[in-house]
Amino acid sequence: MATFVFCSLNRTAQNAARRSLSSHLPRLAGAAQPLCSAHSPALTLRWLSRGTRFRSQGTPGSSAARATRRGALALGGAAAVTAAAAVAGFLANGNHFQRAEMATRVSTAVEEKEEGDILERCRGFMSPPVTDIAVLQGSKAEMRTRMEMLIMETQAEFCRALQEVDGGTFKVDRWDRKEGGGGISCVMQDGKVFEKAGVNVSVVFGNLTEEAARQMRSRGKVLKGKDGKLPFCAMGVSSVIHPKNPHIPTVHFNYRYFEIEEEDGTKQWWFGGGTDLTPVYINKEDAFHFHNTLKEACDKHHPQYYPDYKKWCDRYFYIRHRGETRGIGGIFFDDLDSPTQEEAFNFVKSCAQTVVPCYLPIVYKHLNDAFTDEEKDWQQVRRGRYVEFNLVYDRGVKFGLATPGSRIESILMSLPLTARWEYMHEPAKGTQEAEMLEVLRNPKEWV
Amino acid sequence: MATFVFCSLNRTAQNAARRSLSSHLPRLAGAAQPLCSAHSPALTLRWLSRGTRFRSQGTPGSSAARATRRGALALGGAAAVTAAAAVAGFLANGNHFQRAEMATRVSTAVEEKEEGDILERCRGFMSPPVTDIAVLQGSKAEMRTRMEMLIMETQAEFCRALQEVDGGTFKVDRWDRKEGGGGISCVMQDGKVFEKAGVNVSVVFGNLTEEAARQMRSRGKVLKGKDGKLPFCAMGVSSVIHPKNPHIPTVHFNYRYFEIEEEDGTKQWWFGGGTDLTPVYINKEDAFHFHNTLKEACDKHHPQYYPDYKKWCDRYFYIRHRGETRGIGGIFFDDLDSPTQEEAFNFVKSCAQTVVPCYLPIVYKHLNDAFTDEEKDWQQVRRGRYVEFNLVYDRGVKFGLATPGSRIESILMSLPLTARWEYMHEPAKGTQEAEMLEVLRNPKEWV
Repeated sequence: MATFVFCSLNRTAQNAARRSLSSHLPRLAGAAQPLCSAHSPALTLRWLSRGTRFRSQGTPGSSAARATRRGALALGGAAAVTAAAAVAGFLANGNHFQRAEMATRVSTAVEEKEEGDILERCRGFMSPPVTDIAVLQGSKAEMRTRMEMLIMETQAEFCRALQEVDGGTFKVDRWDRKEGGGGISCVMQDGKVFEKAGVNVSVVFGNLTEEAARQMRSRGKVLKGKDGKLPFCAMGVSSVIHPKNPHIPTVHFNYRYFEIEEEDGTKQWWFGGGTDLTPVYINKEDAFHFHNTLKEACDKHHPQYYPDYKKWCDRYFYIRHRGETRGIGGIFFDDLDSPTQEEAFNFVKSCAQTVVPCYLPIVYKHLNDAFTDEEKDWQQVRRGRYVEFNLVYDRGVKFGLATPGSRIESILMSLPLTARWEYMHEPAKGTQEAEMLEVLRNPKEWV
Repeated sequence: MATFVFCSLNRTAQNAARRSLSSHLPRLAGAAQPLCSAHSPALTLRWLSRGTRFRSQGTPGSSAARATRRGALALGGAAAVTAAAAVAGFLANGNHFQRAEMATRVSTAVEEKEEGDILERCRGFMSPPVTDIAVLQGSKAEMRTRMEMLIMETQAEFCRALQEVDGGTFKVDRWDRKEGGGGISCVMQDGKVFEKAGVNVSVVFGNLTEEAARQMRSRGKVLKGKDGKLPFCAMGVSSVIHPKNPHIPTVHFNYRYFEIEEEDGTKQWWFGGGTDLTPVYINKEDAFHFHNTLKEACDKHHPQYYPDYKKWCDRYFYIRHRGETRGIGGIFFDDLDSPTQEEAFNFVKSCAQTVVPCYLPIVYKHLNDAFTDEEKDWQQVRRGRYVEFNLVYDRGVKFGLATPGSRIESILMSLPLTARWEYMHEPAKGTQEAEMLEVLRNPKEWV
């Protein structure tokens, strides 16, 4: 990754495509459920009572009526269940490209609400945000606040879409970090569709040593601290979804933001992230849909983003000792601090909002695909490779495991429920398994 | 491990115990089977023809007659099957301590044969040795030769004992290392008793950089090479056995020898190794048997070996991010270069010959234990922790994965066939699973 050269930015206007996504549709919302396991009983009570009040405001009505209600990030209660079921029914019947487009539009509705009331937006989250709501309300314009709201929204949107298709419920765990901050881990395990689904938010802050600060940036920029200490804030949303059916691929995404304050008070900031797909079998239509959805999101911001970040993804998710990539890639970027903070954030927001339309249509398409024991075994072998990548190479996992006080369960929720290691496993020539391996050994262009 | 201080050696006489092990019994020998996948078709043919000749020499007869035939490391063919079945039948009927004692005596028979004919001894191996037999014959007295013979014998003895109890057959793969040397990997997968059993021998040589040579020793001694290069030879036998029944523990052992030649022609050499047990449930009788068998082997050489190497083992097999040891330990040592090469080798030989008597009685004891789905699940969770240790911390695995040209399948054969990661898995208080965790969090003295 040290060899990656960030391209100079020659922005092209791609507003037309963006404008076409401005219609509003109700989003996929989950059923009524316990909203959180909050910091303290008092907080839980306060949060649940808000949730109840919010749910009582949900008026049953037509999709159109709901669609025009701006400022509501997520619908709760019985009305929402009905609405979500209607959307899911449509999705299950349409072809997956229609569904992808619809999901994109659904997702775009969220974007419109960034200016909405903080408290109102928080009601749609899986749990109260990590930062106190009053603090967020008092710093609405700050990037920290805007990013924390975005990652909480991304978590809620994705969790609800997954609950909708699975029928199961995410277990929501809030946790505190002794040194500052905390997180919200949402995990659904052994569901109907998903073997293991984890969607994690963390917002942590404190002081870094100069050396640790340098290591956090892939370009290793030297930062000067006060007495060697640099106040920092790091936040992100990350997720890995392992489905049961070997014809539904595993997806992973992660969007993050860092801020470090130098000795003279200057704030260094940067974004990182990516979304990538790990299928068990190659399906060219799925691969095109996934990459093309990402490309469209990237192209709205810069024509070079998709090609550069696609390559970076293939390079990053590489299992060196196997000579294979982990999956068929997607996008991956780090150290993004240009052209302006506003434009970088908008790009990250586009990416985060693309998670559902990238992945859910593929899930619905293969929901009822039949599979054999041999196909399940091959999936388990690929799960083993996933474990190898995550434990041996993933920078985030390595950093987390080596950091005292890390929440290990949140770091390792990315591991599959089950995996398999067969000695000298090598698919026979001409099989679909061999076709998959060929792609992993020689990454392809899908768009 | 850097903090380990090697104890000064005040050898105590323990020859009485040793003498009591001098009776001979036929060893557990496997059924007739393809002996190898050799380097080249020519070599295979030569080896098989020797194997056939040897088998034709196996004369059926009484156990006593076979027991008196010295110089034969392993019996092949139908006579051996009969003999092995008789021994196994006895083992299955006796209590496990009797069996342990018997297995120790069985194993001791091998020790007596070090002076035997090289070619004769090679016939009992799973494959021709890595080094050409003629070369071995011409250097009988050299430590390299004696150690290669010991690791080949240990592999054969252990594989045959496992085949005997499982009924399955090891797949034998010979492999070459481009830079010099090679190995023999024996793997049995999805057997009746064993989920995955791997017993690997490797004998590699070539040139090391001074930095690499320094890293190979846990004490980091500085070695001076000719133009920065140091000719080296490294060999060892290593094994991991994952049984299916959650009441039969996983075992691991590894015995190795290094030689490095310095600029002035001085040879630096050292031994390393260990045997450790990873049960899924605590069984105090098993734990005592396993540790006590190791202690007896150690005590023959030095009274401080067992207590020191037991502690080293608990420290080495530690999953730091979980705050747990991998299993209930055993012994682990490295950098052993005293009091003399002869005595260090004799200690390693005692340890290697203790593998079968340490483990097989425990396997036979639990062979037909009933188990529930919940017990199988807990086994799979523990398998996950095994994977975490091996991929994140094990020095050998890390070194192997990072070394270009390593045989990945032999390095990763230590991983279980199947493993499981459950989010926030924590056994209920008072359960046997909680008892196991308690021991892993607070290592015990078993003897």
